[in-house]
Amino acid sequence: MIVLEPIGVVRGGRDETVDDDWGRSRARIDLDVARFGPDALAGLGDFSHAEVIFVFDRVGDDEIEFGARHPRGRMDWPKVGIFAQRGKNRPNRLGLCTCRIVAVEGTSLIVEGLDAVDGTPVLDIKPAMSGFQPRERLREPPWALEIMQAYW
Amino acid sequence: MIVLEPIGVVRGGRDETVDDDWGRSRARIDLDVARFGPDALAGLGDFSHAEVIFVFDRVGDDEIEFGARHPRGRMDWPKVGIFAQRGKNRPNRLGLCTCRIVAVEGTSLIVEGLDAVDGTPVLDIKPAMSGFQPRERLREPPWALEIMQAYW
Repeated sequence: MIVLEPIGVVRGGRDETVDDDWGRSRARIDLDVARFGPDALAGLGDFSHAEVIFVFDRVGDDEIEFGARHPRGRMDWPKVGIFAQRGKNRPNRLGLCTCRIVAVEGTSLIVEGLDAVDGTPVLDIKPAMSGFQPRERLREPPWALEIMQAYW
Repeated sequence: MIVLEPIGVVRGGRDETVDDDWGRSRARIDLDVARFGPDALAGLGDFSHAEVIFVFDRVGDDEIEFGARHPRGRMDWPKVGIFAQRGKNRPNRLGLCTCRIVAVEGTSLIVEGLDAVDGTPVLDIKPAMSGFQPRERLREPPWALEIMQAYW
């Protein structure tokens, strides 16, 4: 077992776990000030984007999918394995989002386009580096394009 | 506290935690077959890349940085907060890498360019979707380009 301690919490933004329209959502990630020095976010403002790993903590144990399902229950999309989709009802309930950095204010990070609701535990923040982006053009099935059409 | 159970393990690839030359490293991620159905990876082969979240499990508790440091100890690079860099000595020790999918073989995923060593616990696998890539051009400081020059 891997025991992790949230490094901080999402504050503000939306309070509903909805599927779409996350692009303009603005929120704050407040680091746990008892554990981190004032310099834990130093220099992050030199990056335009951050990758945030968080926990879909509103998903109950009995809602987790271990095999395959239709993304969003859409029967017109193929039934694919839980690791071939990004839905929240997944083992370990980890969310991952690249969002825009609006500002760094001490131990708080203001972001835009983070698809996590108010109160979400955050496990890590990494700067988005161009060298860590995919090094080839992405190939993906049609449903993966359709599912993102109204997401941001 | 957040308690997670690895979904699988990295097998093969490299056995040394080195800084550079990960691009051609080929490895397998074996899902924990006791927990996952044969269809947990179904459809992942329709994607060219996957995002893998793993644990830098060789990093000791006393090696974790909670404030700021020079990336790779390079004094010619600025001292930045641990969340403004991607080094492994970070709180929660989470690694994140977008790698190429070579093949899906039942409950095993063969990947190329995953910067995790043999035996690394894997917490999640997500398909890399174009809709989840940064929606604007990335801005980053010069050291972030330099540190990636020999990485892949």
